[in-house]
Amino acid sequence: MKIGLLGCGVVGSGVLKIVDGMQDSSFAIAKILVRTPAKITEACMTADPDEILNDAGINVIVECMGGLEPARTYVLQALQNGKSVVTSNKKMFALYEQELRTAAAEHGCALRYEACAGGGIPWIHELERIRRIDGISSVRGIMNGTTNYILSNMTASGMQFEQALAEAQAKGYAEADPTDDIDGYDVRSKTAISAMTAFGMPADPGDIPVFGIRTVQAQDLAWGKAHNRILKLIGRAEHTNGSLSACVMPVFLKNTDILAAVGSNLNAVEAVSDTLGPSMYIGQGAGSLPTAHAVVQDLLTIRDGCLCKEPEARVPVSESGRTAQYYVRTVNPHAFADITAEKADTNILLSREITLTELCTYIEKASDSSLFIAEVEK
Amino acid sequence: MKIGLLGCGVVGSGVLKIVDGMQDSSFAIAKILVRTPAKITEACMTADPDEILNDAGINVIVECMGGLEPARTYVLQALQNGKSVVTSNKKMFALYEQELRTAAAEHGCALRYEACAGGGIPWIHELERIRRIDGISSVRGIMNGTTNYILSNMTASGMQFEQALAEAQAKGYAEADPTDDIDGYDVRSKTAISAMTAFGMPADPGDIPVFGIRTVQAQDLAWGKAHNRILKLIGRAEHTNGSLSACVMPVFLKNTDILAAVGSNLNAVEAVSDTLGPSMYIGQGAGSLPTAHAVVQDLLTIRDGCLCKEPEARVPVSESGRTAQYYVRTVNPHAFADITAEKADTNILLSREITLTELCTYIEKASDSSLFIAEVEK
Repeated sequence: MKIGLLGCGVVGSGVLKIVDGMQDSSFAIAKILVRTPAKITEACMTADPDEILNDAGINVIVECMGGLEPARTYVLQALQNGKSVVTSNKKMFALYEQELRTAAAEHGCALRYEACAGGGIPWIHELERIRRIDGISSVRGIMNGTTNYILSNMTASGMQFEQALAEAQAKGYAEADPTDDIDGYDVRSKTAISAMTAFGMPADPGDIPVFGIRTVQAQDLAWGKAHNRILKLIGRAEHTNGSLSACVMPVFLKNTDILAAVGSNLNAVEAVSDTLGPSMYIGQGAGSLPTAHAVVQDLLTIRDGCLCKEPEARVPVSESGRTAQYYVRTVNPHAFADITAEKADTNILLSREITLTELCTYIEKASDSSLFIAEVEK
Repeated sequence: MKIGLLGCGVVGSGVLKIVDGMQDSSFAIAKILVRTPAKITEACMTADPDEILNDAGINVIVECMGGLEPARTYVLQALQNGKSVVTSNKKMFALYEQELRTAAAEHGCALRYEACAGGGIPWIHELERIRRIDGISSVRGIMNGTTNYILSNMTASGMQFEQALAEAQAKGYAEADPTDDIDGYDVRSKTAISAMTAFGMPADPGDIPVFGIRTVQAQDLAWGKAHNRILKLIGRAEHTNGSLSACVMPVFLKNTDILAAVGSNLNAVEAVSDTLGPSMYIGQGAGSLPTAHAVVQDLLTIRDGCLCKEPEARVPVSESGRTAQYYVRTVNPHAFADITAEKADTNILLSREITLTELCTYIEKASDSSLFIAEVEK
């Protein structure tokens, strides 16, 4: 197996390190795409993608460039040239999975994405494996290490969001532009990918409601503490009667929920299936070597033979009657009067059991940019 | 694939149910061995093992009879007849793995044992999968649902061991003779099997020191609570500089350890490896359907092609200098005077950092049948 590596940043350099260390003659990294000619430091590097994508000797492409374009075009071109692909680019893959999976099936290639959800956790693999036997009814989890680090730090210290974000950035757990993490978009991509793998029900990530932690404050965590609850950003998806419900939302978990004990920058994901019931997997959801480990697992799986089947058609995301109680902190509490079950403070209220769709109509009316929403676990 | 099922109790009936429900024509249960002719209720049942073991049409045997004999003899005979074997019999497999794995390799058969450790958790599979890339340095976990249920119940309610055991028996979580569970022998088998799989270092289970929870009392859990610690029965194994250290021991875990949050009858196992760091898997470690799920996963793995390699030779188990602090409750505290760092109560002491070997010399001298020992997590 001759591998072409697109991108040699955090994940790509990890892949290089692991493959080199394995000294397995059955696969080798033949060529590496770097962004500009100035970055070429070794003979196997090139800044010209065609040198890799059109090299008949290369049979697998590892894409860890990130970003939507040109990553999508390169992956598509690789598949059309009959090369199997492993990608760690969750945002791109969640958005374009229909097109890419169709191309892979058409050209008899493998297309694998273990690193796209759960990082080093064998999440995608275990979902596929459980499905050999069971139906899976739901998935949920802490799918973003940055926000888990921020919330864990705020919970432990009582510090404000801005300070916790700054500390996460200083430690390299958060990027300079943290939007994708703190607004929940990263978890949304992973939730879409998890639902696709667990239920065979792909969805447009844009259809999944997303609430992030940008507006969380120390007082919200204090409310949780007083009520024996821990706040985590949770991605979840359920499959009921052929319809898909999915959401990204901060959730006040009960202290006794195992997820509540998963701190630091760890990820934890859980599937509920017919004969296993709930099964949970915990580990590093990001970082160079854990993510690269997932990529190399995919390479080994491809080496041992595995192709991509035609994708299922995308399905709409619906609430299908799911109701919950919500914690709402707002400068405009009277906008929520109709659905308020309990006033916890001047600007904090607990809703009655409602659907997310119903809640959203009130959120729109409130028009409060500092609004913070979290689900209160049943 | 035509399957012969040996034993149709808790696990065997689960296997039957899952395989029937899958309606996968690629494998079917052809014959079932029951204990006595009186138990024959269907045409495919027999009380004569030779009817199954000598049936040339049957190519895989599932052994879930339990007990050492005749299970061992039947499995050996099946392998010698060229049939692959899946077993859920941890006690038998931990004891006789050398003989059985050698026979499997000799006759080109598969011999799989996912259900032997971690029940429904894909523990054995994930250890094998991690080892495709990483070296594994240690494994540890809550590997017994019965004792986890008892300790969780005692922690939550303050009740005494005898009552918690009786409740576990009433709920079907503990057997009438609970010796294997509460004295730690079940965890010892699983620890040996985990070490064999994780490090390629098999050991005689009899070489692994084992401390159970038969003598635990409410006051021990109270000590833990006062010190922000939760007591769990932990199996652990480490691989350092070519030597194997392993032990089964109650451990006062820190409240912040994720394992401390794993309550009820759940199991949780963790491996530490080169590029992943710690990764943890949580789920049902026993029960008909979860355990049967593991057996059927093995059947699918065999169907997709996988043979047994020659076993590695067994290695001795040593402490290799590992030290820890121990909690000792004894009617004879002066026997431990030399190693006492702190007296916590009239009959409770905390040792200084010592090796387990050293501790054992004092335990022998104390000659106290109500002695309770636990490690205090660093």
